[in-house]
Amino acid sequence: MTSPLRSTLDFLLHDWLQAESLTARPRFADHSRETFDAVLDTCERIARGKYAPFNRIVDTEEPRTEPDGAGGLRVVLPACTHDARRAYADSGMLAAAQDYEQGGMQLPYLVDAAANVFFGCASISIGSNLLTTGNANAILAHGTPAQQQVFAANEFNGRWAGTMCLSEPQAGSSLSDIATRAEPDGEGFDADPLGPRYRLRGNKMWISAGEHELTENIVHLVLAKIPGPDGKLVPGVKGISLFIVPKQLVDAEGQLTGERNDIALAGLNHKLGWRGTTNTLLNFGEGKYPVRAEQGGGLDGAGAGAIGYRVGAPGEGLKCMFHMMNEARIAIGMAATALGLAGYYASLDYARQRLQGRPMGAGGKDAGAPQVALIAHADIKRMLLAQKSYCEGALALNLYCARLVDDGRTGDAQQAQDARLLLELLTPIAKSWPSENCLEANSLAIQIHGGYGYTRDFSVEQYWRDNRLNMIHEGTHGIQAMDLLGRKVLMQGGATLALLARRVRATAQAAAAVPPLALHAAQLGDALQQLLDVTQEAWAGGDAQQVLANAVPYLQAFGHVVLAWVWLDLALATLRSDAQLAQPASAGRLGAARYFFHYELPKIDAWLAVVRRCDSTCADMASEAF
Amino acid sequence: MTSPLRSTLDFLLHDWLQAESLTARPRFADHSRETFDAVLDTCERIARGKYAPFNRIVDTEEPRTEPDGAGGLRVVLPACTHDARRAYADSGMLAAAQDYEQGGMQLPYLVDAAANVFFGCASISIGSNLLTTGNANAILAHGTPAQQQVFAANEFNGRWAGTMCLSEPQAGSSLSDIATRAEPDGEGFDADPLGPRYRLRGNKMWISAGEHELTENIVHLVLAKIPGPDGKLVPGVKGISLFIVPKQLVDAEGQLTGERNDIALAGLNHKLGWRGTTNTLLNFGEGKYPVRAEQGGGLDGAGAGAIGYRVGAPGEGLKCMFHMMNEARIAIGMAATALGLAGYYASLDYARQRLQGRPMGAGGKDAGAPQVALIAHADIKRMLLAQKSYCEGALALNLYCARLVDDGRTGDAQQAQDARLLLELLTPIAKSWPSENCLEANSLAIQIHGGYGYTRDFSVEQYWRDNRLNMIHEGTHGIQAMDLLGRKVLMQGGATLALLARRVRATAQAAAAVPPLALHAAQLGDALQQLLDVTQEAWAGGDAQQVLANAVPYLQAFGHVVLAWVWLDLALATLRSDAQLAQPASAGRLGAARYFFHYELPKIDAWLAVVRRCDSTCADMASEAF
Repeated sequence: MTSPLRSTLDFLLHDWLQAESLTARPRFADHSRETFDAVLDTCERIARGKYAPFNRIVDTEEPRTEPDGAGGLRVVLPACTHDARRAYADSGMLAAAQDYEQGGMQLPYLVDAAANVFFGCASISIGSNLLTTGNANAILAHGTPAQQQVFAANEFNGRWAGTMCLSEPQAGSSLSDIATRAEPDGEGFDADPLGPRYRLRGNKMWISAGEHELTENIVHLVLAKIPGPDGKLVPGVKGISLFIVPKQLVDAEGQLTGERNDIALAGLNHKLGWRGTTNTLLNFGEGKYPVRAEQGGGLDGAGAGAIGYRVGAPGEGLKCMFHMMNEARIAIGMAATALGLAGYYASLDYARQRLQGRPMGAGGKDAGAPQVALIAHADIKRMLLAQKSYCEGALALNLYCARLVDDGRTGDAQQAQDARLLLELLTPIAKSWPSENCLEANSLAIQIHGGYGYTRDFSVEQYWRDNRLNMIHEGTHGIQAMDLLGRKVLMQGGATLALLARRVRATAQAAAAVPPLALHAAQLGDALQQLLDVTQEAWAGGDAQQVLANAVPYLQAFGHVVLAWVWLDLALATLRSDAQLAQPASAGRLGAARYFFHYELPKIDAWLAVVRRCDSTCADMASEAF
Repeated sequence: MTSPLRSTLDFLLHDWLQAESLTARPRFADHSRETFDAVLDTCERIARGKYAPFNRIVDTEEPRTEPDGAGGLRVVLPACTHDARRAYADSGMLAAAQDYEQGGMQLPYLVDAAANVFFGCASISIGSNLLTTGNANAILAHGTPAQQQVFAANEFNGRWAGTMCLSEPQAGSSLSDIATRAEPDGEGFDADPLGPRYRLRGNKMWISAGEHELTENIVHLVLAKIPGPDGKLVPGVKGISLFIVPKQLVDAEGQLTGERNDIALAGLNHKLGWRGTTNTLLNFGEGKYPVRAEQGGGLDGAGAGAIGYRVGAPGEGLKCMFHMMNEARIAIGMAATALGLAGYYASLDYARQRLQGRPMGAGGKDAGAPQVALIAHADIKRMLLAQKSYCEGALALNLYCARLVDDGRTGDAQQAQDARLLLELLTPIAKSWPSENCLEANSLAIQIHGGYGYTRDFSVEQYWRDNRLNMIHEGTHGIQAMDLLGRKVLMQGGATLALLARRVRATAQAAAAVPPLALHAAQLGDALQQLLDVTQEAWAGGDAQQVLANAVPYLQAFGHVVLAWVWLDLALATLRSDAQLAQPASAGRLGAARYFFHYELPKIDAWLAVVRRCDSTCADMASEAF
């Protein structure tokens, strides 16, 4: 039997996003519905066999350290994590969207993203592959051919894993304050075949998969500052450069040289969720593992300093890293969505099987009648419908964004430009909206289970814990909100926002002509106009500090308008397709759309009211008044 | 230095609720501001010394079982739990609100409730005393003098602990389906000095503190059904009776007889939070511990059956138990509030100490300037202010309810009647509103901590996990909502709701005359009218099933209106008091009130819209359409 997730993905990919139409483009010419289906089949099978059964194990047997015999620490992970990693790498999914020359299969990113949802649903934390592909993609985009050949290629083929090292203990959201230094490594520093060679020293915090033995090497992408002639670091983000810092040093052919780089695991963070993936504090270049002392002597003459190869120009580090960060943000949105869906399916199964209570009839309840399944109760349906509208809506939005990635790369010129702009605008929503609303969905999944929901005998409490990280890592809600209101809606003098508005209006116009959707269409049109008006009114005063004080309520309202648009478009696609209408799932989608318009979209009024008037209640509070 | 919690309690007790005025009543004549202060001082000291330092330990060293040497299981708890229990019992707080004859100190319940907040903030799960006092109070209200003397008295004096045994594995929210049977215990069953004696058999689930060795005995209050003449159980709640079932049998003087009752610990539930308190599955009367086989032979002739003493009349069990359940519901609201406050204070400390980023100035940010404390950022203030408005508002509501308990017992006739009715109406709000909104507060406390928030090195993630139980135990959100919309607002033909409305209007009228609050007053008046109109319109159709389908959104809106009223009344009290106005805390309270009116109250429109039109989107969904 087709799983509910697979049915939903099929609808979104084919009935809604016309994935097959991509095969008309040269890059995807070898593909077809059959190859797409085969990828989804394979991923669902691996996720079911190698991920799902072990999701609780990676939570209870969380990563631990033991002495590595060289004065440092090694990380111990359960065997199932090694198995899952191997199965994923063997599937070829790490490079699925890459060129044939890269060993990839030139799969549309849309299909790649859809296939990965199976893994996220089965166990979000057993695999941490999103950073590996993101890392390799950043090197492909900004690295030299040698860097691509040595580092990116060995990540795509599964030999090595990758990380993203931005935060430091004293610098989380505030990247301009990073203090990791990178100094040229001796005289011939700029003649290394792997790129300009530096010695790095500094501490990096919150590094996911920063240390493990799942792969023979780990490729760290590290932000650091190159000191000026006065030896001082340049304040702000302008001084930041990007470096490839491998755990084990390699030669120009990608073979391990047997030299361990000067990177020490300082400790593991113990988290409330997402426990299958290590979260590390890494000390770079403190001299714990001196390396190549003969080559310039490192930072202390005795080989201290982690050896790293600069990617891109000095001072361009944050720009290069944003490539990876944007990809990671969308991946986090997808992870939050997958966790939300996992909880939705679990609570749906439970609600169908668990008998409890009786419906209220005209004359009250008949205590002598047999109990009914939970799902017979309206309030249980409400909680299921809320989950469905959050999670399937978030899935649709994320796949829409994945399709924009494809259009940005392979569409015609106008299509490609529009797609890239829209993607930039929607990235903070794709990251933040699922991380907030699919977390709420997980809470509802617990609620449906009653007392069983808060026990560790059921899966839903873990989804909820796992999901709580998503509003924080890869840029907090506050950071996404500042990005949206402070930068993205202002891009090109507002032309990007206008582009989105045209798409929303097009959906509303199409729906206005379809009687069951006409009211929703009018409601969406009003909501959009309200959003646009508020954006303009807020910025009319022009004081950024006042406007941005309410960036988060703005983000929440913007997200709800986007999701209303998505749901209306999904409803249109459902009604367009006769095949769809024959299925109960079709009534389900129309019900979820209706739920979103009746129960969710009206929430924007309260959020936008404070943005519109630049409400200063919060900003005005004195610190000592709390 | 006075702690922030103590300052807030002092304001609420004295500037707002005029606690000292209670000392004019005969029952409280021995009391004064000094005795009240002494109780608060003592509780804060014990909570700081015996609770707070061990909150993480009871989370990580959760209760476990080991063989008891008699073929069963015993529960092992960390030593700190024993210490905390002893310190609490020794303080006299278990009986503080009781009569002098009961060994109590005739403390107003208001002050008792306020003092207990210190324990809830310090460690919600190390103590589980709320059920002991609730259990003893139910016996005082419905038991015989002997039952009061033997069971209630020994709970108040700390010798024994109490539980509440309602749910069964197949019957959670649906109490009418409980299957535990109680049969008269032999010929002389109704001549026992401890009350009519029965033998019980059945399984009870989710029993908090159902087994432990903190006390020499445990007094279970158990709902069970007495079979009819045909041996069958009566369907529905009418067949339910209430029984005292002690773990160890006792004589009429309250001395242990050395006989173990036939109650077996079947297992512990392992929870996502609130781990310091055992949560048990208890098997009553399965013959594991045969007892008094000579006395009628029990259920099998060999002593099977847990011996229990009926409390109240047959079939009146649920009514008697509601006494305890209502008390437990308010206690859960207070627990959720205490957890919310704990997170608020933790994140406030963190926001004041942690340096991160720079404020946006007229010309953007100056990367060369030193970093500022987190609390300098408007979005951090927003998250602090939201927490403050949720948690201090919830605290005020709960203390208001505690004052209603005092007025219901010791006020003049009219005052007492009004207080009892208002308390009935507000109980579902006092339970549900903090459990939802203070949970959200805990999530904001995590968010303020950034990555540190999701690690177990900080306290906030535990508060969030602990708090997640509160929307479920002692009656889920759905149950509270049905109680409110289906029963409480209809009480006395709506007269109880009208009574609340008069109090709300009185506050709004007083505030209308105070310029800084006039707008809030008008907003509250409108919100109240909207709530009343919607209540009437929804019930005008009269179809209970349709109306109650949206009981939860109604509960949410009702709660927000009540909290807006509370906040406006707090703002009035703040402005009334010159002493208060001199303090920064006064600006803080006015800011929190303003926050609630600007950011929170407007949310009711979305919730009430679906109630008003009896929106059937959820109820109409077919099970197979999900």
